[in-house]
Amino acid sequence: MNQHSISVLVGDGEHKVTSNADRSLHRIITEDTDTVIDAPCGGKGKCGKCKLIVESGKVSEITDQERRLLSEHELERGVRLACLTYPRGDVEVRIRENSRAHIMVSGVEYDAEVLPNVRKTHVVLEKPDLADQRDDFTRLKDALGGANYHMPLKELYQLPATLRMDNYSVTAVHDRNYIITVETGDTTGKNYGIAVDIGTTTVVAYLIDLNTGKTLDAASGLNTQKSHGQDVISRINYTLQHDGGIEHLRKRIINQINSMIWDLSENSKIAIENIYSIALAGNTTMMHLAAGLPPGNIATVPFIPVAQNRMTFLADDLGFGIPKGASAYLLPSISGYVGADIVAATLSSGLYFGDAFSLLIDIGTNGEIVLGNRDGLLCCSTAAGPAFEGATIKHGVGGITGAINSVKLEDQKITYTTITDSRPVGICGSGIVDVMALLLQCGAVDDTGRMLGKDELSENSSCDIAPYLTESDDQPAVTLVDGAQTENGEAMLLTQKDVREIQLAKASIAAGIMTLVKRSGKQIQDIDVVYLAGGFGSFIDKKSAVRIGLIPAVLEDKIQVIGNAAGTGAVLSLISEACIAECDRIAKNAEYVELSSSPEFQDEYVNNMFFPIDD
Amino acid sequence: MNQHSISVLVGDGEHKVTSNADRSLHRIITEDTDTVIDAPCGGKGKCGKCKLIVESGKVSEITDQERRLLSEHELERGVRLACLTYPRGDVEVRIRENSRAHIMVSGVEYDAEVLPNVRKTHVVLEKPDLADQRDDFTRLKDALGGANYHMPLKELYQLPATLRMDNYSVTAVHDRNYIITVETGDTTGKNYGIAVDIGTTTVVAYLIDLNTGKTLDAASGLNTQKSHGQDVISRINYTLQHDGGIEHLRKRIINQINSMIWDLSENSKIAIENIYSIALAGNTTMMHLAAGLPPGNIATVPFIPVAQNRMTFLADDLGFGIPKGASAYLLPSISGYVGADIVAATLSSGLYFGDAFSLLIDIGTNGEIVLGNRDGLLCCSTAAGPAFEGATIKHGVGGITGAINSVKLEDQKITYTTITDSRPVGICGSGIVDVMALLLQCGAVDDTGRMLGKDELSENSSCDIAPYLTESDDQPAVTLVDGAQTENGEAMLLTQKDVREIQLAKASIAAGIMTLVKRSGKQIQDIDVVYLAGGFGSFIDKKSAVRIGLIPAVLEDKIQVIGNAAGTGAVLSLISEACIAECDRIAKNAEYVELSSSPEFQDEYVNNMFFPIDD
Repeated sequence: MNQHSISVLVGDGEHKVTSNADRSLHRIITEDTDTVIDAPCGGKGKCGKCKLIVESGKVSEITDQERRLLSEHELERGVRLACLTYPRGDVEVRIRENSRAHIMVSGVEYDAEVLPNVRKTHVVLEKPDLADQRDDFTRLKDALGGANYHMPLKELYQLPATLRMDNYSVTAVHDRNYIITVETGDTTGKNYGIAVDIGTTTVVAYLIDLNTGKTLDAASGLNTQKSHGQDVISRINYTLQHDGGIEHLRKRIINQINSMIWDLSENSKIAIENIYSIALAGNTTMMHLAAGLPPGNIATVPFIPVAQNRMTFLADDLGFGIPKGASAYLLPSISGYVGADIVAATLSSGLYFGDAFSLLIDIGTNGEIVLGNRDGLLCCSTAAGPAFEGATIKHGVGGITGAINSVKLEDQKITYTTITDSRPVGICGSGIVDVMALLLQCGAVDDTGRMLGKDELSENSSCDIAPYLTESDDQPAVTLVDGAQTENGEAMLLTQKDVREIQLAKASIAAGIMTLVKRSGKQIQDIDVVYLAGGFGSFIDKKSAVRIGLIPAVLEDKIQVIGNAAGTGAVLSLISEACIAECDRIAKNAEYVELSSSPEFQDEYVNNMFFPIDD
Repeated sequence: MNQHSISVLVGDGEHKVTSNADRSLHRIITEDTDTVIDAPCGGKGKCGKCKLIVESGKVSEITDQERRLLSEHELERGVRLACLTYPRGDVEVRIRENSRAHIMVSGVEYDAEVLPNVRKTHVVLEKPDLADQRDDFTRLKDALGGANYHMPLKELYQLPATLRMDNYSVTAVHDRNYIITVETGDTTGKNYGIAVDIGTTTVVAYLIDLNTGKTLDAASGLNTQKSHGQDVISRINYTLQHDGGIEHLRKRIINQINSMIWDLSENSKIAIENIYSIALAGNTTMMHLAAGLPPGNIATVPFIPVAQNRMTFLADDLGFGIPKGASAYLLPSISGYVGADIVAATLSSGLYFGDAFSLLIDIGTNGEIVLGNRDGLLCCSTAAGPAFEGATIKHGVGGITGAINSVKLEDQKITYTTITDSRPVGICGSGIVDVMALLLQCGAVDDTGRMLGKDELSENSSCDIAPYLTESDDQPAVTLVDGAQTENGEAMLLTQKDVREIQLAKASIAAGIMTLVKRSGKQIQDIDVVYLAGGFGSFIDKKSAVRIGLIPAVLEDKIQVIGNAAGTGAVLSLISEACIAECDRIAKNAEYVELSSSPEFQDEYVNNMFFPIDD
């Protein structure tokens, strides 16, 4: 008998098996793959749940039973019931329900079941008559399984008309407790959400297909609140010094996200009406400002947020221009300085559910650090300052186009790369770390952080950086880019003062790591893996990071770069209800270590102030 | 040893016991009365819960422990802890927590524990420091016992300031799930609610002290929607025929209730800021209009409401001018024509929890009827028409000042009373029933409803009403008030046409009663008690009601008048969380009998069309 090749597509994955034509697709999938297909009736053609889409190839004819159990719209799209469909050649089928999405986070594969909090359920209600006078809302709830749903008042206003427009065939958009809206007919194919990572500097929004878990598009931009302060503290001060300052900053970020949503919707040809959920991650202050909560007490001892648990609102109440009943939620934070972005990054790193003793570092203005595994999490925030974001460095810039992001000495010449290979406009974090490592390697900076003069250097240098050494404001400096190659004709330097900034910042982060390790009762060498999250972490050279003492040398080979892990975490929370619960658990169970009052941290800060002596 | 008389006031009740000075008030109350006083620590002076107020008499000195556990405000008001206070003479104390209110409903005593859904809890939070960095909201929730409360966003905005205004001493206003608002200091003494019975004709609002369960004041007025239709159907038609009609009617009733709340607040010197909950009862259409839900489908077969379950909203969302976080709820309805008013009336009658097989009748434009006991409830709505509200009667009026509300024939003379003994302006329901009974008794109307001419009457009359018989528009009529005694000089009559209206209305109600009895599988004589609810029911003469066949003769001695039972039910729901749950149970479990398609009803309607023949 002929063997057919059966390819089963599930999320991003594919299972290939062979079978003769005697077994239903339901049996083939159940017996020969480790994929699960929903079939409460056990594959007897009764429940109508084991839907799949035949993407290519020949299968058996549509049965009468399938015509009864599937909608016209589904039949048109090629939806079949696996238990009633048999291969008649090589076929490729896609399982839609309970599909799994494999999300790659720079080498870490996150296997999340696509089961979003916000779902669409198509139901055809029994028509009312004198023997069945249930009210519209009860009738709908009964069809949805009788759960105790709530529904926003304004959505109830539309319910009678919506139900009667297409003979009681409606699609309910709902989570476990709320019916967000009800649409006429079967609209289950259109279910989208937005995940946003609100950084102090950069805002990134992702448009997600909640049926497949796929990211359809992303948009990013500088946080428009920046004109009211570069960092968290200056934004908070703005709210304290200006009447209506909170509301002003709130509107700025909400309007920015709204305009990103409009762009994403337009580019992807997806109607804003079909966006039902917004997930927000960000540091604790960004979360406060997005909700309009006064962040003032985060800025002063003892750094108390108004609320840091996960909070869900009507998107409309937060000012989002998506359907009235849609929800927007703020992921939970851990403390005033370990925010929802770190919770989301912890989620996407997966460190909280494994056995591996792991370290997560996200370096921005603060360096947030998480240490632990499934047995427990410790976390802290180091006030590293914005040196690695380029803010306190003479020619420093953020990770923008033209930023020098790597520096080397090759054949006695300094070479560098820039972001998108553009003409250099400044030096960003990863470049700064490279230069610093280079200066240490060449002996141009000693272990105390003193930059040597040209004359001092020539004698004890192992690599010849002497030609680049110069002076700036009577202080030693190193020339990275010649004036001839820069736009304004001014040479690009790294100065003694810059070195001090870097020194303080790296000491702070290294001390944070050591403090958490001490609290954990383990040793630094017990750490199995180091996740570097965030934009800075994505470009950093591991060797350079170790060379300057930002990360202990023993960890060099254990470093994994995981990119915008906060954004990925927010996306995961949208497509998987279970991930929302995980975020809550992470936020609740992570133990926050306050460094400002920690004697261990003071000790470690001093210990880590010097640069490591080169072996 | 001296025995002191101890008087313990609880709600409206009083327990009198005697004791020597050796036992604490906690022991005296616990051991010698059947009253419960809250004392989680078991009377050891630790929990600070067994608060009472010493209203008169001498007790032991205030202890240091009481100074620690009670607020200054409480100490000033005479609050003491029962376990630390000993009698030093005859004393009178009042227990505030868990007090019980005995509500008299025309002879039916309703014993409701005062445990409102909306409560106030005074807490003094631990102050934050670097060793305790819980966010404000978590700190508050922990102090309240750690429940998983929600809080409206706009209330969270105020939280940091409120907490810090008086050293973290705050009062939370909350139900089981929501923190409505947080107030600085101890404001537990001020907790008020509003119960409203929205009648098609009349609106009544009650101001309730949620600490004591007492009704402080009531206000009433004609429903201002009346200009858009006298009855439910014409209001619904207004919404169908006018764009924005629903919103217009919604605003009318909400504004009317708001203005009643302002009046009640002003008269009682109670700040609107301390009103945290509004309970709404009314027929299903009135509930729809108050929420702005489209009532259109209630008017046509098969009479489907949008939603009839209990629904809770932010009072602000419904347009009420009370604190932003306050809640307003619509009590549940049973069907399109058996509304929340009947559910509330059923609650306050208590018929659903007793063994007595009971009948509840509320006569308005429709006559709603409930039959049953704890074992089950049947209900229906008879389209009796507004005859008993005076609407289709030539000189009929509602229960207003000057309405003739009782009529007798004494010494061959017709005598009558009017509401507030004012000059007669018309005849209301109870007066109409009296006249009808009188005409039947005197033989001026025969069993078919035909009004006899003056000449026909003189021969077969048992009582001499002949002098009052006259004609109106060539039809027989009876003169009730001479033209000389009325304002406009026109005589006040009851006409043949009026008699026909009454005949149809009473047939409809009597048939409704009989249909339910049949459905119950019991006999009319099995009914143990008949509750007459509503304004009409409060004034009706039982004998007259039986004489005209409105209520079967066998039930005459079983009738109890229970006044505005719908309003009382709404009040009960405010002061007792348990009563809200009872309303839900009543609405869920009552079986609605649709009369319009019931053959039994058709039969009974014909059977009850004639008037009973006088024995």
